[in-house]
Amino acid sequence: MSMDFGFDLISDEEYERQRGLYGPLTDSLRRLIEAGLHTEADEDTVRDAQNRIEAVAEMLETKQRAKSTLVHEATGRPLAWANPAVGLRNAIAPPMVIHHEDDGQCWSEFTLSAAYEGPPGWVHGGICALVLDHILGEAASEGLTRPKFTGTISLRYLRGTPLGDLRAEAFVERTEGVKTFARGYLKDANGPTVEAEGVFIQPAWARDAG
Amino acid sequence: MSMDFGFDLISDEEYERQRGLYGPLTDSLRRLIEAGLHTEADEDTVRDAQNRIEAVAEMLETKQRAKSTLVHEATGRPLAWANPAVGLRNAIAPPMVIHHEDDGQCWSEFTLSAAYEGPPGWVHGGICALVLDHILGEAASEGLTRPKFTGTISLRYLRGTPLGDLRAEAFVERTEGVKTFARGYLKDANGPTVEAEGVFIQPAWARDAG
Repeated sequence: MSMDFGFDLISDEEYERQRGLYGPLTDSLRRLIEAGLHTEADEDTVRDAQNRIEAVAEMLETKQRAKSTLVHEATGRPLAWANPAVGLRNAIAPPMVIHHEDDGQCWSEFTLSAAYEGPPGWVHGGICALVLDHILGEAASEGLTRPKFTGTISLRYLRGTPLGDLRAEAFVERTEGVKTFARGYLKDANGPTVEAEGVFIQPAWARDAG
Repeated sequence: MSMDFGFDLISDEEYERQRGLYGPLTDSLRRLIEAGLHTEADEDTVRDAQNRIEAVAEMLETKQRAKSTLVHEATGRPLAWANPAVGLRNAIAPPMVIHHEDDGQCWSEFTLSAAYEGPPGWVHGGICALVLDHILGEAASEGLTRPKFTGTISLRYLRGTPLGDLRAEAFVERTEGVKTFARGYLKDANGPTVEAEGVFIQPAWARDAG
């Protein structure tokens, strides 16, 4: 089985141009999501807002990009800008930027707002799982440069994760054939709140390529 | 330890009014998130769109609701409208509506768009985890009427989950003291794609209340 991964190389200059254009757009969308979540404006205002949102969507839909992965020419890393965990262009994504250390460790420091709340004051357990699945996958796939799919992931919730400033980190424990074993943590200022262990698997179609 | 869960009862009539007002607002926001994700409109259009988004956010921010949980008077269930997995008012949430059967089983049929994509064509593994953590939690907490926190959750990815029409389901396997053991599946038209097992725990402050 083979898959068609279309991709386009993107230069440093073009990368910076798009980041400068789309990063602020996504930030504004995050503000709007939050405003919509908590608004108690009167019905006319809400309906007026909705009509304006539809009009803006129409403006942006006039030209949509082809669905291909953008790969950063200098680093060889896919940009993953549409990704729902880290995408610079995806307003759903917790605003995570992943840092890759030379030894393969990954970490990210980010802030979760009330849009990610489960029980009052705490991050939704499933959002913790989203963040950890993603960062373990980043460690296992060497920054998404090698195709790896989650095989299994187990999460242990040590205590509630408060909304606000958080840190996620992950590293590879060992590799056995096509399986990569990764471990990671979600932490607040007082230490780990959730621990994760995952097994990531190189898909059959990518094995010959090495 | 005790926690202050402020809540307001909401009548059937008010529930329907708010659902009719905020459901379409959230749908429009989802359309806008998707439009922003894939737009290739020219820079002036993108900047103009961003300014308009900021202006709409300001309109909606003029009056924000107090942070208290809304509880549906007729069923005693919290609305969870801000919830990032199922919230009617949260544009981040996959558009899931949870159905509760008399025997305690929960299920939901929903459609995941490209905003939830990980590898090309497939749902992000962490989004599968978010969906399953939430629906197992619904089963374990009897529709969020009993406070239960995720203790551990293990996910087994049987194959890729395609974007599009999906079904999630969960049920309680057994209860031992403060621990509730739940199991569930994410499925496409050809059967299970991800299997989940979770242990949900009644917090200490809720144990005396029974």
